[in-house]
Amino acid sequence: MYFVDIIDYIGTFAFAISGIRLASAKKVDWFGAYIVGLTTAIGGGTIRDLLLGITPFWMQQPSYLIVTAIALVCVILFSKHLVRLNNTFFIFDAVGLGLFVVVGIEKSLQQEFPFWVAIMMGMITGSAGGIMRDILIREIPLIFRKDIYAMACVIGGIVFILCRQTGVSPVLTQIVAASTVILTRVISVKYHLSLPSLKGNEDDESVNI
Amino acid sequence: MYFVDIIDYIGTFAFAISGIRLASAKKVDWFGAYIVGLTTAIGGGTIRDLLLGITPFWMQQPSYLIVTAIALVCVILFSKHLVRLNNTFFIFDAVGLGLFVVVGIEKSLQQEFPFWVAIMMGMITGSAGGIMRDILIREIPLIFRKDIYAMACVIGGIVFILCRQTGVSPVLTQIVAASTVILTRVISVKYHLSLPSLKGNEDDESVNI
Amino acid sequence: MYFVDIIDYIGTFAFAISGIRLASAKKVDWFGAYIVGLTTAIGGGTIRDLLLGITPFWMQQPSYLIVTAIALVCVILFSKHLVRLNNTFFIFDAVGLGLFVVVGIEKSLQQEFPFWVAIMMGMITGSAGGIMRDILIREIPLIFRKDIYAMACVIGGIVFILCRQTGVSPVLTQIVAASTVILTRVISVKYHLSLPSLKGNEDDESVNI
Repeated sequence: MYFVDIIDYIGTFAFAISGIRLASAKKVDWFGAYIVGLTTAIGGGTIRDLLLGITPFWMQQPSYLIVTAIALVCVILFSKHLVRLNNTFFIFDAVGLGLFVVVGIEKSLQQEFPFWVAIMMGMITGSAGGIMRDILIREIPLIFRKDIYAMACVIGGIVFILCRQTGVSPVLTQIVAASTVILTRVISVKYHLSLPSLKGNEDDESVNI
Repeated sequence: MYFVDIIDYIGTFAFAISGIRLASAKKVDWFGAYIVGLTTAIGGGTIRDLLLGITPFWMQQPSYLIVTAIALVCVILFSKHLVRLNNTFFIFDAVGLGLFVVVGIEKSLQQEFPFWVAIMMGMITGSAGGIMRDILIREIPLIFRKDIYAMACVIGGIVFILCRQTGVSPVLTQIVAASTVILTRVISVKYHLSLPSLKGNEDDESVNI
Repeated sequence: MYFVDIIDYIGTFAFAISGIRLASAKKVDWFGAYIVGLTTAIGGGTIRDLLLGITPFWMQQPSYLIVTAIALVCVILFSKHLVRLNNTFFIFDAVGLGLFVVVGIEKSLQQEFPFWVAIMMGMITGSAGGIMRDILIREIPLIFRKDIYAMACVIGGIVFILCRQTGVSPVLTQIVAASTVILTRVISVKYHLSLPSLKGNEDDESVNI
C-alpha cells in the first residue's frame, strides 16, 4: 500500500464520517446513514468519472465501501466522543480534500482534457460529494454558505496548472497543489474568512409582459 | 410478451403511481406529476446504466414512458379510489422491486463487474428512483427513515450471489433472489421492522482550531 | 461567430442570471451563486450528453463558464436595477429555451436515437437545469408548479418531429420548432395559463397488510 492510498482512505473516511454525522441529525436509520456517508465520500469522484466518460473509481475496488462501513461503525460506537475529535476530523477532511482535488486534476489531464476542465474536475471531485450529501439531508448546500470550500479546490487547481506549466516536477506539483488546498481551508476556517454573499429577494423574478 | 416483461411493466406502473401520488400532495401540475412518476420508475435503472457505461434502458423502447402515462391517467381519474388499493400497490411495488434488483444484478454481471458491484447496482436499480422522487418533492428520502427498503435490495443481492456461487440454476437464482426481496419487504412492513436510527446533533461539527 | 452561437450565449446568460438571482434569495456566497448559475445554464445539456453517451458540451470550450462569470458580475454590480429588466430576461430565457430544445433534439437524432428519445432530450436540455437549480436552493422545482415550461419543450419537440417527417427543410424545421417553444412560453405567461394540478394527501400511502 502506497502513502497516497493511505491518504486516500483517510480522506474517504473523513468525508464518510461527515456525511454520517450530518445524516444522524435527521433521524436517519443505519443503512440510510451509510448511503449518505458513501455518497459524501464517493459522490464527487463518481460525477467526475461520468463526465470524463470512464468507469467510476469505486467500482474497481471495494475498499471505498469498506472504509465507509468502518466509518459507520465508528459513529455508532463512539458518537458521543466524536465531538472532541472535531479538529482531527477537520484536518483529515482538509487533507482528503487536497488529495481529491489533485486526483481529479490528474485524471482529467490523463484523458487529454484542457487545463480549465481539469480545474473544474478537481473542484467537482472535492465538493460534489458534499453537495449531494446536503441535498439528501435536505439542506441548502453548506459549501454555498460557509467559509471557503469549493473555492479552495479552484485555488489549488490554479496552483497545480501554474506549477505544471512552469516546469515544476510532477510530484512537487501535486504536493504544492494539495498543500494549497489544505492551507486555504485551514486559514479560512481559523480566521472565519468567507466570500461575500449575494442579497436578493424571492419575488424579484416576477414578469409582467 | 414474456412473463418477465409483464412483471417489469407492473413494477414500473407501481413505482410511477407512487411518484405521482406523492407529488400530488405537493400541488404539482399534471406534467410535473408525470416527470416525478417517470423519475421514480426509471431513475434507478438510469443511474445504474450510466454507472455501467451503457445506454439507459428506457431509451431503447418507449414502453416505460407509456406505462407512466397510463399511471398518470389512472391517478387523475381514480385518485379517490386508489387509497383502497394501497395494499395492492404495495404488493405491486414489492414485486417490481424484486424484479428490478434481479435485473440490476444480471446487467452488471453481464458487463463483467465483480459481485459486490452487482449487489450495489441491484440496490441502486431498486432504490435510487425513490430517492430521486423524494429529492424532487423536497422530502428527506423515505427509504432512509421508514422500514427496510434499500436493505431488502442488498439482502436479495447477497442471496443472488450466494445461489450463483453454489451452482443454483440461473432461473432459480433469479426467482429465489426476487422472492427474498419481496418477502423482506412484506415482513418488514407487516411487523413494523426497521433498522435502528442514529441520533445526532446538528451542531456537532463545530471546529475550533 | 455564427448567429446560432450568439443565441446560445444569450440563452446561457439568461439561464445563469435566473440561477444566480434565485440563489441570491438564499444568502448564498458569490462562489455558490456561480455554481448555481452554472448548473442552471449547463445542467440540462450535461444530463442530455451523459444519457446520449457523449462528452458534455461545456467541456469542449470554455465559453459557457465565461458567460456564467459575466452573468455573476452583472448580478453583483446591477442587482437592484435588474428587476426593471425582468421582461427582457424573460424573453432571453424563452429564446434560449427554444434554442436549447432544438439543439437537444438535433444532437439526439445525430446519435441515431428514435424521435421520442429526441423529444425527451429536447425537454431535458431545456428544463433539467432549472430543476437542478431548484434542488440546490431547496425549492420544489418551479417548473412543476408554475405555468407551462417543460410542456412547452415537449410541444416544440413534437412540432420539430412533425416538420421533419413532412419534409420541411432542416433550417425551417429548427426555426418553427424554436418559435413554437418561445410562443408557448410567452402565451402561457401572458395569459396565466397553467396545467391542472393534482390534489392529494400525504397520508394516502399507508399500508395495512
